Amino acid sequence: MAKGSGMIEPMMATMLGFVTTDAAVPGPLLQRALREVVDNTFNAITVDGECSTNDCVLLLANGASGVTIGAADYDAFAQALESVCLRLALGIVRGGEGATKLITVTVTGAATAAEARKAAKAVANSLLVKTAVHGGDPNWGRLVAAAGRSGAAFDLERCTVMIGPVVLFDQGVPYDDRAPDAARILSEREILIAVNLGMGGPHAAMMWTCDLSAEYVRINAEYRT
Amino acid sequence: MAKGSGMIEPMMATMLGFVTTDAAVPGPLLQRALREVVDNTFNAITVDGECSTNDCVLLLANGASGVTIGAADYDAFAQALESVCLRLALGIVRGGEGATKLITVTVTGAATAAEARKAAKAVANSLLVKTAVHGGDPNWGRLVAAAGRSGAAFDLERCTVMIGPVVLFDQGVPYDDRAPDAARILSEREILIAVNLGMGGPHAAMMWTCDLSAEYVRINAEYRT
Repeated sequence: MAKGSGMIEPMMATMLGFVTTDAAVPGPLLQRALREVVDNTFNAITVDGECSTNDCVLLLANGASGVTIGAADYDAFAQALESVCLRLALGIVRGGEGATKLITVTVTGAATAAEARKAAKAVANSLLVKTAVHGGDPNWGRLVAAAGRSGAAFDLERCTVMIGPVVLFDQGVPYDDRAPDAARILSEREILIAVNLGMGGPHAAMMWTCDLSAEYVRINAEYRT
Repeated sequence: MAKGSGMIEPMMATMLGFVTTDAAVPGPLLQRALREVVDNTFNAITVDGECSTNDCVLLLANGASGVTIGAADYDAFAQALESVCLRLALGIVRGGEGATKLITVTVTGAATAAEARKAAKAVANSLLVKTAVHGGDPNWGRLVAAAGRSGAAFDLERCTVMIGPVVLFDQGVPYDDRAPDAARILSEREILIAVNLGMGGPHAAMMWTCDLSAEYVRINAEYRT
């Protein structure tokens, strides 16, 4: 189970997550698996780049099934945990304040893993990217701009921008004739955006976010303390 | 003269600024003065945390007045330049997409100048702060949260939050009975927000931003490339 809505990112924000298993799992193994898994799930989502004070995710095991998980089962256990956590994390983004679309941002071709993450975060938190998706506008310029200003090493002449399977920009060349195809993809509720930074590195990152709507502003401007 | 609107911050963004003087001023002195002055003017504003590709501010001197500015006049010249640049920079924020209010964010009591700037930027770019101001809600919690998550050293027990002259939070204690006074201030078009980080340092920073309105979303979602 997990709840969230606004104030999502960084560090889980107004999110409460509880994951349970009826296997018997030693505490240190639970802790290690959860720590590893949150990086690519609960800590890879953003609704509005805001965080809160009561952020947590708890993993509990009660052993009721009689099955015991040991060190030899770690990889399988961590993988199962990741799939549960990812489903919950994406649910939080889908339920984001005013959200109408789930956006998966993939950054590849980065010089380092940290730079991949930095660029993915810049794209995922960009108001112009989030409003463009809301309006269904295949605006590759906003994607290039967000990645370019992120601080990650970036080569415009080798960069690629995709919306779904549609390449809108590649190696310095825009393909604006494909905009109608990309616009059709943007009319869906789940959208994949991919940016290759052109640094030729094997480093990649994924972040999940939602679109920014007038409804988000209404909810957060009309809310009274 | 300066133009801007959206895509403001960091690094001047979609902004073109031209400042002219009819004094005769050596090039190096012009360059030094402009470099110094932009930090606290054009580089201290944000509309939406987005930047663009054609950002610039140019300072031109033609000597037509017959007055010559030398090294001895530097301080007076830089001060005059700063006052011109600040007026232009604030004009850009006032004219921000969908903006209805100019917000001055002051951060004091920081451990270092860089941390003061970092906290001011976090507050100025916070969607929750910007929507709260838009809705006229004196939400000290959003201000504390933005400063606290900024990465700057911060002590909640010694922190102070003010809207205009109204202290809403001081040394861990909220003063919610003053919310109506603060709400009246938020109904104005120009608003001062001050956060003391409680680190006791002499370091401070100012940033200027605007509120976030549904109109911003409309402009940027309906805009077509």
